[in-house]
Amino acid sequence: MEFTKMHGLGNDFVIVSKYKDIPKDVERLAIAMCDRHFGVGADGLVFILPSDQADVRMRIFNADGTEAEQCGNAIRCVSKYVYDHELVNKEKLSVETLAGIQHVKLHTKEGIVNTVEVDMGEPILKGELVPTAIHDPQVVDRTIEVDGVTFHFTAVSMGNPHAVIYVENAKDFDVEKWGPKIETHPLFPKKTNVEFVTVKSDKELEMRVWERGVGQTLACGTGACATGVASVLTGQASRDVTIHLKGGDLKVFWNPEDNKVYMTGEAREVFTGNWLAPVEF
Amino acid sequence: MEFTKMHGLGNDFVIVSKYKDIPKDVERLAIAMCDRHFGVGADGLVFILPSDQADVRMRIFNADGTEAEQCGNAIRCVSKYVYDHELVNKEKLSVETLAGIQHVKLHTKEGIVNTVEVDMGEPILKGELVPTAIHDPQVVDRTIEVDGVTFHFTAVSMGNPHAVIYVENAKDFDVEKWGPKIETHPLFPKKTNVEFVTVKSDKELEMRVWERGVGQTLACGTGACATGVASVLTGQASRDVTIHLKGGDLKVFWNPEDNKVYMTGEAREVFTGNWLAPVEF
Repeated sequence: MEFTKMHGLGNDFVIVSKYKDIPKDVERLAIAMCDRHFGVGADGLVFILPSDQADVRMRIFNADGTEAEQCGNAIRCVSKYVYDHELVNKEKLSVETLAGIQHVKLHTKEGIVNTVEVDMGEPILKGELVPTAIHDPQVVDRTIEVDGVTFHFTAVSMGNPHAVIYVENAKDFDVEKWGPKIETHPLFPKKTNVEFVTVKSDKELEMRVWERGVGQTLACGTGACATGVASVLTGQASRDVTIHLKGGDLKVFWNPEDNKVYMTGEAREVFTGNWLAPVEF
Repeated sequence: MEFTKMHGLGNDFVIVSKYKDIPKDVERLAIAMCDRHFGVGADGLVFILPSDQADVRMRIFNADGTEAEQCGNAIRCVSKYVYDHELVNKEKLSVETLAGIQHVKLHTKEGIVNTVEVDMGEPILKGELVPTAIHDPQVVDRTIEVDGVTFHFTAVSMGNPHAVIYVENAKDFDVEKWGPKIETHPLFPKKTNVEFVTVKSDKELEMRVWERGVGQTLACGTGACATGVASVLTGQASRDVTIHLKGGDLKVFWNPEDNKVYMTGEAREVFTGNWLAPVEF
């Protein structure tokens, strides 16, 4: 079975586009292909399928075989793939996912897609909806105490909860130590993703991320969006910023006109391959 | 650049056979290709090259860009590759490595290589040569105390030191806890690899391994050989055993005629690929 290996900021996927529908027992196939020693190795297996509602349809299966509703990094890879491989010849694209139809804008360079802009929707700021234990219209620059240390945080939901914390030097910050303690703090009834952020200028931020239930990762799209929003709310940055993450850069724009957050980032093809083991079990 | 991804018991390699010599700046290429998120992902990058001393020559570069002298799992992959792809049409093969010329025997099934037998040389049993701090002709079934717990170990070198320790249930043994404590125990002046072994019968052993300087791994060829030798020395198993490791099975035969250890195991092709990024930097 032919496939292409792609990544968005180090979040990596096996992309398969030759099917009209997913193969049977896709759970076993995803587990086998995503295994990093016995398989191809990836965070997810993505099928690009025909859609009758959008330009293209995608389904993502995680390395453990479960299906994901959506993924900001995968949608950039899929968008680049369908344009570069001439499956869709448009620079504004609709992608059908389990979470609904997503809209993306392609930025091309020398005929191929360089970056992809994804409409990430409106941020949720009401404390009880993020959710946090603070039931105020906005939870901005509040204090949280952990092991006798006081941090300042701003709570933003982008469909999932984020606590954005400003620190002096995000690059050297001990994310592994403080991330899990803040994730599970009683202030966050459904736990929280945690971003540790340093403001370099009003246009440039440095961010490290601790993902809820996962741990430290190379990049987190919704975390970057939450960080962009929090930095506007705290008056530290403009609505249009570049965020440096471990896996690469994301641009985040919080549009004052429609209140939506637009995230722009790269996607890269690394290699093409031909899987030699069975596809159906 | 075309490549094939293979593994021997989960120890995985990018195999490249199209060159007469290694490309320049191979260190950067190995680091880029072995990266598990931004590259192909592998434990090593292996070049199959022409040899004027043996049937074939191999050079292995680790994921950190350094060159490895030899690797038992990689040599099985290389041997299968050159036979299955008709580069060498012999079932007894000589392979030139930085550690000298290695001899292997191929076991085929339906025209392709199923398992590969590698001559691993003679074990070293003298205490001061393994090395251990016990200067006896053999170090068999001695005690070692760690954190108040007493283990029994047998010391064997297969070119690198091993402490083979018998436990009641290797499968559930806490390798992460005890491995590093035994690795760095003063009884082993150059540290040691540690095998935790359960004897299932005189033909069958269960083994988990803690590799010196690496940590727990899926498989270790020299560790399996040391375990086979130790199990003969302690009278628990025959000279011909099957050893079950996390990554798969290895057969070990300690030949009484030439005193050498012969190890037989699988190698598997997982996928073929075409690397899209630069080869020379």
